[in-house]
Amino acid sequence: MAFPKAVRLVEMSPRDGLQNEPGPVVATAIKAGLIDRLAECGLAHIEAASFVSPKWVPQMADAAEVMASIRRRPDVRYSALTPNLKGFENALAAGVNEVAVFGAASESFTRKNINCSIAESLERFAPVLEAAGQHGIPVRGYVSTVLGCPYEGDIAPEQVAAVAEALYDMGCYEISLGDTIGVGTPLKAKRMLEAVAARIPMPQLAAHFHDTYGQALANLYAVLEEGVSVIDASVAGLGGCPYAKGASGNVATEDVLYMLNGLGIETGVDLEKLVARGHWISARLNRANGSKVGLAWSSNC
Amino acid sequence: MAFPKAVRLVEMSPRDGLQNEPGPVVATAIKAGLIDRLAECGLAHIEAASFVSPKWVPQMADAAEVMASIRRRPDVRYSALTPNLKGFENALAAGVNEVAVFGAASESFTRKNINCSIAESLERFAPVLEAAGQHGIPVRGYVSTVLGCPYEGDIAPEQVAAVAEALYDMGCYEISLGDTIGVGTPLKAKRMLEAVAARIPMPQLAAHFHDTYGQALANLYAVLEEGVSVIDASVAGLGGCPYAKGASGNVATEDVLYMLNGLGIETGVDLEKLVARGHWISARLNRANGSKVGLAWSSNC
Repeated sequence: MAFPKAVRLVEMSPRDGLQNEPGPVVATAIKAGLIDRLAECGLAHIEAASFVSPKWVPQMADAAEVMASIRRRPDVRYSALTPNLKGFENALAAGVNEVAVFGAASESFTRKNINCSIAESLERFAPVLEAAGQHGIPVRGYVSTVLGCPYEGDIAPEQVAAVAEALYDMGCYEISLGDTIGVGTPLKAKRMLEAVAARIPMPQLAAHFHDTYGQALANLYAVLEEGVSVIDASVAGLGGCPYAKGASGNVATEDVLYMLNGLGIETGVDLEKLVARGHWISARLNRANGSKVGLAWSSNC
Repeated sequence: MAFPKAVRLVEMSPRDGLQNEPGPVVATAIKAGLIDRLAECGLAHIEAASFVSPKWVPQMADAAEVMASIRRRPDVRYSALTPNLKGFENALAAGVNEVAVFGAASESFTRKNINCSIAESLERFAPVLEAAGQHGIPVRGYVSTVLGCPYEGDIAPEQVAAVAEALYDMGCYEISLGDTIGVGTPLKAKRMLEAVAARIPMPQLAAHFHDTYGQALANLYAVLEEGVSVIDASVAGLGGCPYAKGASGNVATEDVLYMLNGLGIETGVDLEKLVARGHWISARLNRANGSKVGLAWSSNC
C-alpha cells in the first residue's frame, strides 16, 4: 500500500459532464457560471470545453464563448478537448491553458466512433501534439475503454498500456485511463494500472472511472492503493452513460472527495462548497443530483 | 491481502429493506413473494422478518403470516429480528431457522432509540440468547453505528469491539458490523474491523454497510482485503436512510455481487436472476431501483 499524500482532482463536468446532456443546449452563462463556481471550491484543473465540430457535439458549440465568459483565475488550469489541429487552433485562440486528445484502447470502439484504426487515430493527433509543443501548451492524453468495451467486452491490460505509451511517447504529459462504460471491478482496475505503470511513471497517470455499475469508488480505492494521484470526476455525477439510458456515467466529485477526505489525502478542495455547487448545477439542468453525498447532506444527514 | 475464496451474502431486503418503507404496509403476499424469488437466485440466508411490536414497526406486523406464506426451502436459512423474549417466542412459533438481536456501538444512539444504556440493552438480550440456546436456534448479533453515529459522530473502534465481544460472549455465533448511516470510508472501516477481529475470529464477522454517502462498495472492498467473508446487502438497495430522506440506505445486493464476481469470489448467487428480482420488487413498491447494476442492465448496457 502506497497511498498518495495528495490527489489532484481534474473536474470533468463542464466537458465530459455536459457534452451528452440531452435536451436543449445549456446556456453559455450556465456553463461559465459552473466553471467559476467550481474554481471557487479549490478545483485547480477544470476541463472547460471541447473544441469539436458542433455537428458532432452540439452542446460544445459555444466552447470559445464559454472560455471568454469565465472569470479567469491564475491558479486554475482550464483545459479543453481538441481532436484535431483546427480544434487546437480554436482552443489556443480562446486562451486555454492545456489541451487534450482522446484515444481508445479498443479497436472496435475506435472504428465505430471515428471510423479508423487506433494507429490511424494516433496519427491524427500528431499535428495537435506538434502545434501544442510549438506553443508550449501541455497535452493530456485520454485512453478510453480501458476496463471494457461495449463492442469487444474485455480489453487486455497490455493493449491499454500500448496505447497509453504511444500517447506518452508522442508527448502527452499525463495519461488519463478511462473506464468509459463503468464495467470494471477493483482487481481488474489494479491489473490494468500495473500494466500501464510498467511503461509510464505513476505520477503521470490519472484514473477516469465511471460509476455506471456502482464500482467507481471501489476501483478508485484499489488504484489509490497502487499510488495513483490524479483522479477525474464530475460534480453531481454530471454526464450519463451514452450506452445506457438512465444509468450514471461519471463518478461524482463530491463522493470521491468524501472518500479522499476520509483517507486523509489532501486535495485543496472544499467539500461543503462543492456539494452546494452540485445542487446549483443540478437545479439549473433540472436533473437529479447524482452525488450520494449531495443527496445525504441536502437531507440534513 | 487475503481475499476470501467465497462470501456468504445475507439478504436484508425483506426486513431491513422494508421495515422503514414509507406509505402503506406492503402486502404479505409481496413480502413472501420477494423472499421466494430471492431464494431462487441462490441466496441461502434471508432475513425474512422482524418480530417486534407493530406499534414500533407497522411494516413488520405480519411477520408470522410472512413466515407461513413462503415456500420453505431446506437449503435456505430464514432469519428474523427478535428484540425480546416475546419476539423470540413468536419467531420460534413461526418456524424461523435463526434469530438476531440488534445492539449499537453508540451510547447516545442506544439511549435515543430504546432509552437505555448499551449495557442495559445487552442485558435485555440475555433471555433471548438463553431461550435460543435451549431450542438450538442460532443467534446473530448486530452492532449498529460502527463507523459513526448521527448523535455522537465518530465511534472509537475499541468501543465497537467491546460491544461486539459482549454479544459474542453472550452466545451470538456471528456479529454483523453495521455502518447504519453510511458515513464510513475505507481506512476507517479497515481499522474498525481490525479492532473487532483482535477479539473475535474473522469468519464470525459480517460487514453490513450502508451506501448513504456512496462509500459502501469501497468500504466492502477494504474489509474483503482483510478477509471478511460475510456481507449483508439488500436487493435493489431497498431501505432508505431514516436519518436522510431521499438518501439511500442498504447497499444493493446486485452491486455487491457484481464486484464479488469481478474479484473471482464465489457466492452461489445468480446475478442475472437477482437483477430481475430487483426490478420486480421495485415495480411492486413503485420506487426507483437503487441498484446501479440493475439500472445499467435494464438499459441494455
